Amino acid sequence: MSNIIKLQHGCGGKPTSKLIEEVFYRSFHNEILAGGSDSALLQLGQQKLAFTTDSFIIKPLFFQGGDIGKLSICGTSNDLAVCGARPLYVSCGFIIEEGFEMESLIKIANSMGETAKDIGAQIVTGDTKVVEKGNGDGVYINTSGIGIIMNDYAPKKIREGDAIIISGGIGEHGTIVALNRYNIKFSSALTSDCASVFNIVNHLQDHFEYIKLMKDPTRGGVATILNEVATVSQVGVRLLEKRLPIKNEVKAVCNMLGMEALYLACEGRLLLVAQGDKAEEILSSMKKLHCCRDAEIIGYFEEKNSKLVYLENEFGSKRILSSLEGDLLPRIC
Amino acid sequence: MSNIIKLQHGCGGKPTSKLIEEVFYRSFHNEILAGGSDSALLQLGQQKLAFTTDSFIIKPLFFQGGDIGKLSICGTSNDLAVCGARPLYVSCGFIIEEGFEMESLIKIANSMGETAKDIGAQIVTGDTKVVEKGNGDGVYINTSGIGIIMNDYAPKKIREGDAIIISGGIGEHGTIVALNRYNIKFSSALTSDCASVFNIVNHLQDHFEYIKLMKDPTRGGVATILNEVATVSQVGVRLLEKRLPIKNEVKAVCNMLGMEALYLACEGRLLLVAQGDKAEEILSSMKKLHCCRDAEIIGYFEEKNSKLVYLENEFGSKRILSSLEGDLLPRIC
Repeated sequence: MSNIIKLQHGCGGKPTSKLIEEVFYRSFHNEILAGGSDSALLQLGQQKLAFTTDSFIIKPLFFQGGDIGKLSICGTSNDLAVCGARPLYVSCGFIIEEGFEMESLIKIANSMGETAKDIGAQIVTGDTKVVEKGNGDGVYINTSGIGIIMNDYAPKKIREGDAIIISGGIGEHGTIVALNRYNIKFSSALTSDCASVFNIVNHLQDHFEYIKLMKDPTRGGVATILNEVATVSQVGVRLLEKRLPIKNEVKAVCNMLGMEALYLACEGRLLLVAQGDKAEEILSSMKKLHCCRDAEIIGYFEEKNSKLVYLENEFGSKRILSSLEGDLLPRIC
Repeated sequence: MSNIIKLQHGCGGKPTSKLIEEVFYRSFHNEILAGGSDSALLQLGQQKLAFTTDSFIIKPLFFQGGDIGKLSICGTSNDLAVCGARPLYVSCGFIIEEGFEMESLIKIANSMGETAKDIGAQIVTGDTKVVEKGNGDGVYINTSGIGIIMNDYAPKKIREGDAIIISGGIGEHGTIVALNRYNIKFSSALTSDCASVFNIVNHLQDHFEYIKLMKDPTRGGVATILNEVATVSQVGVRLLEKRLPIKNEVKAVCNMLGMEALYLACEGRLLLVAQGDKAEEILSSMKKLHCCRDAEIIGYFEEKNSKLVYLENEFGSKRILSSLEGDLLPRIC
């Protein structure tokens, strides 16, 4: 392992996983943590709870389609939602750089309050710290959240034939951050997909029996998440390029900057694995929601005893997609 | 309100309270948050839970008696413990600066793991982010925690005659941070009081009926906490100088640096308000614990319809102690 922390340790790919396993899992070892779920799953008396945490260091703080405040509430709620939990309570910890404009802080706080309200969650506890100018970068926010598991949802064993559904366009959040970061003027209505996915999960409750896994493809994007799932389930993945809902603007920016949409973060998309013969039914139920109008079945779990994820184009040629290795775009969330 | 964030907004005194009330409470308003307790108190089914969050930005990261890792677990557990809760589950969110030594991170993680184990809590979920060199200061840690309220503990109305007990020496953590910050060599065995207070709270369960309030006097110190309590309860406080357990080394450093121990942070002391006629009994029970060998009754709630906190010396002369106003010592936790 590297003897210093590098930016890539925070990008959500292999170096992040390695750091978590070799440092944090070793020091903190316990069964709940080792579950490796997006949220810790807790049994407290009769209640099944999900508990999760996320720190947000996104640059820029304000972007087309959201800001760090909205992102922080959506991100934490989404980690709860993909575990089948209804987000109830959120904490917020602010680390603010001396000299930060009060007006911006108020905007961010309002955005957090409104987003939480929309989701039906409450921000119930908080903490405020200030660091000297030069020791921060505007504001960093941690949100932790508690949710209650709905309808006894639990992930199920993934098998060959299971389908992969994405709730909407891929890589839009990552594209917006890249455009801002590289200071590229781009005349388009493209915005970040930053949103809560709880309403989708809530809408799908009747289908929980046939939903094997839910994920939100943030850092590392769809490709990295699917690699993780393939590794754990030991079933390889075939993605169909022509089915991928990638907007033309996202493709254009990816071409320009040499990036690949499948590795770009989404911050408001639900990726789910459905029992193969129920996938069309689930997809058509999802499409009733306006936010899922671009939802698609984008591929299948196919090869047993494999852990490869490959992308097949319309001519049938295949290309392996590995996990994100380096630091594609730091500070995306 | 100031139009930019200043260091004093993070020091736990009046500017911090003002920021919380005027920005965060306004945006997030809900009854649980407005409770203003150290932890949010939640009813989930039959379970009464406490939920809290804290970000740690202490400088230096390693100090006599602890490090940011131990501090982060103790701090969050203590916020739960003073609400009468047994700390069960903790989350950790790391914001690490690029270039930070892996060895230091491992030390900090080990320290967190060991401290949690000592308390009987588990670190069950986490998040790792990395910021570019120059946009952080080594490592910042957020810990959020969930605890279960023991024996239906609840704070009670404070009245004249109620006594104030502190579990041990005052201002030791703040003194250690000051010595490090000002680079003062000081040959002494003095260490930070950084510790969990849960064992004390747990030990006092049989006395909960007569314990009206528990607090941990961190940022702003004993004086600021007592001002807050006096304001809420509308009963003034008389502190007895000769009863204050302040070590000679703390006094010496305070004299040297022009600080006052009563405003310095403790990170492992329990401050409690006990029914007056039960205070001696509670004190003698506490003293059975080694960590409470210096515990003392340091004053009384006395004057109704007042909110003043004053300090009386052995000759009977009195001095008003207000809340911390400025930035005595930033980044103390």
